[in-house]
Amino acid sequence: MADKVLIYSRFPKTMMARFAERFELLDTAGKPAHEVFPADELRGIRAMLTAGGTPLGAEAMDLFPNLGAIICYGTGYDGVDLKAAAARNIAVGHSPGANAASVADIAMTLMLAATRRLLVADHYVRSGDWAASKQSPMMRPQAGMPGRRIGVYGMGEIGRKIALRCAAFESEVGYFSRTRYDLPYRYFSSLEALADWCSVLMIAVRAGADTQHVVSADILRRLGADGYVVNISRGSVIDEKALVAALADKTIAGAGLDVFETEPHAPDALTALPNVVFAPHIGGHTLESHVAMQNCVLGNLTAFFEGKPLPYAVKSS
Amino acid sequence: MADKVLIYSRFPKTMMARFAERFELLDTAGKPAHEVFPADELRGIRAMLTAGGTPLGAEAMDLFPNLGAIICYGTGYDGVDLKAAAARNIAVGHSPGANAASVADIAMTLMLAATRRLLVADHYVRSGDWAASKQSPMMRPQAGMPGRRIGVYGMGEIGRKIALRCAAFESEVGYFSRTRYDLPYRYFSSLEALADWCSVLMIAVRAGADTQHVVSADILRRLGADGYVVNISRGSVIDEKALVAALADKTIAGAGLDVFETEPHAPDALTALPNVVFAPHIGGHTLESHVAMQNCVLGNLTAFFEGKPLPYAVKSS
Repeated sequence: MADKVLIYSRFPKTMMARFAERFELLDTAGKPAHEVFPADELRGIRAMLTAGGTPLGAEAMDLFPNLGAIICYGTGYDGVDLKAAAARNIAVGHSPGANAASVADIAMTLMLAATRRLLVADHYVRSGDWAASKQSPMMRPQAGMPGRRIGVYGMGEIGRKIALRCAAFESEVGYFSRTRYDLPYRYFSSLEALADWCSVLMIAVRAGADTQHVVSADILRRLGADGYVVNISRGSVIDEKALVAALADKTIAGAGLDVFETEPHAPDALTALPNVVFAPHIGGHTLESHVAMQNCVLGNLTAFFEGKPLPYAVKSS
Repeated sequence: MADKVLIYSRFPKTMMARFAERFELLDTAGKPAHEVFPADELRGIRAMLTAGGTPLGAEAMDLFPNLGAIICYGTGYDGVDLKAAAARNIAVGHSPGANAASVADIAMTLMLAATRRLLVADHYVRSGDWAASKQSPMMRPQAGMPGRRIGVYGMGEIGRKIALRCAAFESEVGYFSRTRYDLPYRYFSSLEALADWCSVLMIAVRAGADTQHVVSADILRRLGADGYVVNISRGSVIDEKALVAALADKTIAGAGLDVFETEPHAPDALTALPNVVFAPHIGGHTLESHVAMQNCVLGNLTAFFEGKPLPYAVKSS
């Protein structure tokens, strides 16, 4: 009999197909597990698959007395209470780096589209305004990549890949992270100093309680009127209300956002703005990145059911 | 008295401001010069500034019997009949490489936006479809950059910058150009072979009579159903009707276009397509690239009026 795995978050069925070949999946489709499955079935659950951003605290863990492994699909695990998991002897696994290239690429896509005003450009051609030689103030020349200083906040695998790509675009690259690394980019010892220096802030920090709203009205103001912020980390890192205000009153020039405070909801005041480029949290959403993430999940689940340590364990857990 | 320069194409006044400080500009605003200025004034014209794509043949040159220099704003000079200019002892200048980074960047912007379906993604968030959990077949995961082979057609300054950027995105890069260079990318001896190998074709070739419609229905078919074509060179390089057909019937997956056969007009059949990202020929349109192009124009005009050879002469002229 195949081992049972509870699917705790909402995932498309196609993403789960490879797991279904090896395990019996109890799919909640994102609904509370007790509404979908009988209590005695849930009591037997030893492993679950979740999305890293889905809240999963002590109370939720206690609904599964036999739970031994929480496996996150993707790099993030900010929704998981690691202390509560450790106290219950629950191992936490994820897919470190499996989607780093894909996420770094969406960061670059959003940055380039925002700074080169691609949505405005596309509309200018499609609408016939270009053919009619209509003026378009939004199409005035902007600074290009060689004319920009890119500030990377967070220097994990994704931050490094963003920095490498930006360097290939002939931009100056600086970064702030808790640790200073031996990397050929200028290091800043605070987010404030980085924001003062750069005109594009790329948020690639691992999100958690300590990064809640650290990109504040003050940080945005430091980017300046030619400044852009790109977020591919978690929505919680930016004070979303302050961001809407800064974009609306031109404190900064624009933004590119793949993540939001309350996904899948993005506030109307934000989505109405013309100077933002949006993506629906598709950073890790490429064919090869899904394969790589699934390989990590399979590796973690297989090891767990064989009684071995998780090969892709969350380090601090 | 300041030397006179005829502005032969239509340029925004702001782009001409630096030239107006040094020269007396006779601005046609893109209209036929004889409708705007008296014939005896035009007879005295010794230098003109034009856009490289604007047609400028023997007949037009003969309207200016004292013409000694045709200066193109930008890299291209495909509109200028170089043989006719040489026969009349007219020097032709341009701005080689001045906009290469900016053009390479728009190529990357269009490629990333097309392959990651950014317009669809932005609309999915703005429309509220994401919040409503509506299905979006266009948002199915696609190959990312590490999963792609990028074919660069043309290995001049722009082609090299595109290749360098793609390599930083962990893509395999190949190229076709008349000359094989000592570069760390796979060389293909024909456009057909490159198109068979790659899934994204980046057109960076210098356009001319010999490149008219070389990206044909056959080349597009070779890219395959997961194929994309990105054009930042000239619209004439692609058979635009064949491209519309290939995009409409899914022979290829999508396109990113900064240039068109009859600018500023893009055919309705093309602009109606959802799988294309458009830009209104803004490749070289960044602040630093304009400054660099203007430096070349000023260098060329100053040298010409001092009786010296053009520092940025078109090589074959």
